[in-house]
Amino acid sequence: MTGPHRVWKFGSDIDTDALAPGAYMKLGIEGIAPHCLEAVRPAFAAQVRPGDVIAAGPGFGIGSSREQAAGVLRHLGVAAVIAPSYSGLFFRNAFNLGLLLLTCPQAGRLAEGDAVSIDLERLAVVTASGQRLPCEPVPDFLLDMVRAGGLFQLLQQRFATDKTPENP
Amino acid sequence: MTGPHRVWKFGSDIDTDALAPGAYMKLGIEGIAPHCLEAVRPAFAAQVRPGDVIAAGPGFGIGSSREQAAGVLRHLGVAAVIAPSYSGLFFRNAFNLGLLLLTCPQAGRLAEGDAVSIDLERLAVVTASGQRLPCEPVPDFLLDMVRAGGLFQLLQQRFATDKTPENP
Repeated sequence: MTGPHRVWKFGSDIDTDALAPGAYMKLGIEGIAPHCLEAVRPAFAAQVRPGDVIAAGPGFGIGSSREQAAGVLRHLGVAAVIAPSYSGLFFRNAFNLGLLLLTCPQAGRLAEGDAVSIDLERLAVVTASGQRLPCEPVPDFLLDMVRAGGLFQLLQQRFATDKTPENP
Repeated sequence: MTGPHRVWKFGSDIDTDALAPGAYMKLGIEGIAPHCLEAVRPAFAAQVRPGDVIAAGPGFGIGSSREQAAGVLRHLGVAAVIAPSYSGLFFRNAFNLGLLLLTCPQAGRLAEGDAVSIDLERLAVVTASGQRLPCEPVPDFLLDMVRAGGLFQLLQQRFATDKTPENP
């Protein structure tokens, strides 16, 4: 169980251009991050704190294939996104970069400023009043990526472990 | 441009248990395939032909994380799934196994038995009457997986190529 996490509430169909605006793509993650979601919530990038979570409507991450859309959320310290559905491509990119996405049909019940906990073992979002919002299962190989900080880091760890002589 | 592909039409939220029924999971892909989608369309597995495509509503592939849900469609020769949205996990598994998923907001315009072509270069489904239904972009690294037959085969090819002395 992790948390409490502060909730930032967004609507449906938040697209990759809102997350990583095209105008700043050349600047790299550090340069894009201050503009993350500015078209929807100008204060978000400046005010989000590490460990905060995003609750949103269906279709989160639709649009282009740009990996930076997930990368900026990780860079800003967003602990998880909680939404009923995602773009398939965004879902793939996010876990590769170590960003946890929870597929939560009842995400709409969360409100701005709520304090929630995340029960990763039984896959639910738990509100301050103890209400449990169940989430779709996340297989271990994806949770391993999140714990490691991304696919690249996970592979680095695994190869490093395999090379350690003490390790059978 | 590939096709013509015959369309099998399905509704929304086709889940992984409909695709790969739990009762047959121990039998492996060959054993599960004859039961693919039997709860929704009993004749599907026996009558689908290699090169056919599935057109479906939103939420295709929701449910469990079982990879066999995508594996059986590949095994039966399904050339592509065309739907407005997918479970993020199914999307990840499908491309890993070489199954093409087209995210097509207007998939609902396709009807059972339609003959469609797929324009992979400009990402559209083209009906027999020439109507173009645009699809979301698919990045090259995912199309490479589909062309190779899956992530595993793609990596095998790449490593094999790297080892070929004639290859710079």
